[in-house]
Amino acid sequence: MNRETVERWRDKISRLVTHRLFINTVMIIILINAAIVGIETFQDIYKNNESFFYVADRILLWIFTIEIALRIIGSKPLHSFFQGPWNWFDFLIVLSGFVFSGAHFVTVLRVLRVLRILRAISFIPSLRRLVDALLMTIPALGNIMILMGIIFYIYGVIGTMLYQKIAPEYFGSLGDSLLTLFQVVTLESWASNVMRPLLETSPSAWIYFVSFVLVGTFVIFNLFIGVIVNNVEKVDEMGMKEDNTQHSSKDKQMDELQQEVQELKELLLQEKYHRNK
Amino acid sequence: MNRETVERWRDKISRLVTHRLFINTVMIIILINAAIVGIETFQDIYKNNESFFYVADRILLWIFTIEIALRIIGSKPLHSFFQGPWNWFDFLIVLSGFVFSGAHFVTVLRVLRVLRILRAISFIPSLRRLVDALLMTIPALGNIMILMGIIFYIYGVIGTMLYQKIAPEYFGSLGDSLLTLFQVVTLESWASNVMRPLLETSPSAWIYFVSFVLVGTFVIFNLFIGVIVNNVEKVDEMGMKEDNTQHSSKDKQMDELQQEVQELKELLLQEKYHRNK
Amino acid sequence: MNRETVERWRDKISRLVTHRLFINTVMIIILINAAIVGIETFQDIYKNNESFFYVADRILLWIFTIEIALRIIGSKPLHSFFQGPWNWFDFLIVLSGFVFSGAHFVTVLRVLRVLRILRAISFIPSLRRLVDALLMTIPALGNIMILMGIIFYIYGVIGTMLYQKIAPEYFGSLGDSLLTLFQVVTLESWASNVMRPLLETSPSAWIYFVSFVLVGTFVIFNLFIGVIVNNVEKVDEMGMKEDNTQHSSKDKQMDELQQEVQELKELLLQEKYHRNK
Amino acid sequence: MNRETVERWRDKISRLVTHRLFINTVMIIILINAAIVGIETFQDIYKNNESFFYVADRILLWIFTIEIALRIIGSKPLHSFFQGPWNWFDFLIVLSGFVFSGAHFVTVLRVLRVLRILRAISFIPSLRRLVDALLMTIPALGNIMILMGIIFYIYGVIGTMLYQKIAPEYFGSLGDSLLTLFQVVTLESWASNVMRPLLETSPSAWIYFVSFVLVGTFVIFNLFIGVIVNNVEKVDEMGMKEDNTQHSSKDKQMDELQQEVQELKELLLQEKYHRNK
Repeated sequence: MNRETVERWRDKISRLVTHRLFINTVMIIILINAAIVGIETFQDIYKNNESFFYVADRILLWIFTIEIALRIIGSKPLHSFFQGPWNWFDFLIVLSGFVFSGAHFVTVLRVLRVLRILRAISFIPSLRRLVDALLMTIPALGNIMILMGIIFYIYGVIGTMLYQKIAPEYFGSLGDSLLTLFQVVTLESWASNVMRPLLETSPSAWIYFVSFVLVGTFVIFNLFIGVIVNNVEKVDEMGMKEDNTQHSSKDKQMDELQQEVQELKELLLQEKYHRNK
Repeated sequence: MNRETVERWRDKISRLVTHRLFINTVMIIILINAAIVGIETFQDIYKNNESFFYVADRILLWIFTIEIALRIIGSKPLHSFFQGPWNWFDFLIVLSGFVFSGAHFVTVLRVLRVLRILRAISFIPSLRRLVDALLMTIPALGNIMILMGIIFYIYGVIGTMLYQKIAPEYFGSLGDSLLTLFQVVTLESWASNVMRPLLETSPSAWIYFVSFVLVGTFVIFNLFIGVIVNNVEKVDEMGMKEDNTQHSSKDKQMDELQQEVQELKELLLQEKYHRNK
Repeated sequence: MNRETVERWRDKISRLVTHRLFINTVMIIILINAAIVGIETFQDIYKNNESFFYVADRILLWIFTIEIALRIIGSKPLHSFFQGPWNWFDFLIVLSGFVFSGAHFVTVLRVLRVLRILRAISFIPSLRRLVDALLMTIPALGNIMILMGIIFYIYGVIGTMLYQKIAPEYFGSLGDSLLTLFQVVTLESWASNVMRPLLETSPSAWIYFVSFVLVGTFVIFNLFIGVIVNNVEKVDEMGMKEDNTQHSSKDKQMDELQQEVQELKELLLQEKYHRNK
Repeated sequence: MNRETVERWRDKISRLVTHRLFINTVMIIILINAAIVGIETFQDIYKNNESFFYVADRILLWIFTIEIALRIIGSKPLHSFFQGPWNWFDFLIVLSGFVFSGAHFVTVLRVLRVLRILRAISFIPSLRRLVDALLMTIPALGNIMILMGIIFYIYGVIGTMLYQKIAPEYFGSLGDSLLTLFQVVTLESWASNVMRPLLETSPSAWIYFVSFVLVGTFVIFNLFIGVIVNNVEKVDEMGMKEDNTQHSSKDKQMDELQQEVQELKELLLQEKYHRNK
């Protein structure tokens, strides 16, 4: 098999993997995968058809493997496939199906099979754009998330120091405290379950909780505001660009007018020159 | 009865059903219907006047039936009545009163009688516009709702897989899990009742819950932001249109100015021509 | 006492009640009133000084009465006092102190004494403007509140019908149901306390609750969006006005330019006329 | 040591404390401090290395003291150091380490050591700007916070008056009531734990709670709206400035045009004058 034949085959594969029918077929297989993992959760059905589910999963895994392989072969050059983050995502999801095979990773494997449903996102362009947009807002919030991290760490350490022995369930270790603080910041049972029992032995605990609720919700709220203002800004910018297009058409008219007036002046000056002659 | 007489009658009916008095009367009957279903909830009153409530309901149903019939007859052409979604709504609400009659559907029927109160919305134009506007924002959120659906399904399947035996009350089946996830996303008792009891047998359950709370609230928050930005955009667009109107009046002035300068130039050129002659 | 003397006295009183010192004095008395009602809540102090608190309250009531009387007398014409809603508020708060006196209304009277603290709002102009602004946003939300009312009523009646006997604590009567729905819409224990116990006897109750949570929060959210967009709109309008001011200064320049070009044309036409002569 | 030598040394120190390496070193020491207070929360590790942690803390305190001292000495003039609020913050955090030393303040001291982590904010410029921006939004909300204070105080006094004896846990004293109201305004267990038990003995308690939830969330919501609109306004202002820059460049063009037309007129008038001569 010489180089040319290879290239011809790769062209064919490239056309195949971008074909509507190919994409729709993969999409349907993803949905079948989704349905199968859903049905598996019903114990009765699963118990009676365990071998069927095992075979179905193997077949699906191999179909996905072949699909990814074809898409890699169809990419020119080969490594261009790995430039898109979504391709990486598809590749890793499928690869992990092989890596974690073995009795030890049963749970991990089952979770991975469910995560394959996420591939539906990479196959529906509008969903992919939406997720891209959602992820794009995260880096802009980097600073506020560092600040939130500092606040959580400080309150976590202080909480563990002060309430470790009084409320071991909530503040037993630094990890427990951070989880409790996350619960508090979602305002879930922060008073009834977490603070009020503590108040009996340490009556000034309300300072800790009220200050954390105020600071935490204020920072989270500002994090949200940041996203809103970011978005409104973008909308405004687009509006401004449109505005500018209008402006520039008017600027052109202005320039024409200025030129004509200049021509007028020249004519008059010529006149004057002639007259004075 | 010939065709013309029919037409004359339909015209009369058309005028009748759009008359202020007719609309107000129907509105009052809707309010009476609302009052009756409200009073029925008081057991003592209902028990002592069961037959009265039955008769009242029958009468109201027939009044509504006649009203809808008149409005259909009054529409030109007849099928134009079924072009408005609100007319369909009115029609189905009344029709269902006949379809579900029978001892088997007692509860359904009672609920339907309460839903007739919704007809008040179709009768108050400003309310109808508001509901139209609210419903209009839904399709724009289609993608984010599909994404939310995928997230719910994945977490639902994983939750059922992992916690089916530990917490059958919350994760007993896929349906139970989805309901629990809905509860978690509203942040209601997600930690105190759902996660904390699970933590005892499966200490890493916090990853499942914290990640779901973060992802879920982030997506829902962005869903909300989408609606806000959508609305602000609309307001901005209206503002821009106003701006454009002002611009165009200025553009006109600019055009006039340009024309006048051109006339000036022509005058000067004529002058020059004459002088050179 | 003739008419003129009366007028002279009223002028004096008018100057008095608008004097800085008078206003500050009343403000301080309001704060003293606030402090007294606060101290009264401490049982020990109250028990030992019951007569002191009674006398202090009487004195405060009479001071406020005299203050309001002076402000009414100082208004020209007399009834102009009752044109401002804040004056009405002050008047009614003080008047009610007399109306509800008597052993029967002890609790009402004590609450009214606390409400006098609200008079601080009518005395601080910036606070009064803020409250005016807050109250002003309410009528714009009229329609959405009617819609919310209809939704509450429908769900209230259905809830009472379906769950009256299963959960009398939450759905015992229409009133109980409405209170429960209010609790549900704030997402407080809606699942853990209200829905989950119901699920055992009526497994389809989740439809009722999930649909209400979705509809309720969606409408409330849109109510909030309405306020935000309203506010942003106002800000935009103000910005646009500024813009317009700039525009108009430019329009003026444009008009001047146009006039000058016209003068130019006239000059040239005169020239032409003279030359042709 | 004469004055000049002192000045030379202070210059050297000034260059030292603003040097990248110095700042990074302090930053790393802050992180070490953060790690140490975190590790201290693990009881086993702390018990076995108590003396190590004591020494480490002393060393860190002295390093921070020397750092602050160097920064004060490096400031010209000396007191300029105390003009920045962040310098004050650094100074007080370190100073308090000495002030509260002694067996009596063990807890305070430990908390202060944790608070030193906050110094990381003053060392990362982008974080410092963020916190400055967050704090800057607070004064603009002054009025709405006074209003919130008045509402809390009134409801607190009334709640204590009415429910002191029925629910001493929640309304035992004015302080308890205010804490309960804070819990209610975060919508945490306001119905299930606070209101519903009260309803049994005082059936009209729902008026108190529902009105407070409505008023409280409405005011808080408007407080949030204030921040949003504030931010959007700022963004709009920046946009407007850009707009103005464009305008001014156009204004310049307009001015030039006007001048040229005026020159034209002058030329024509001269012509006329010459002709008439």
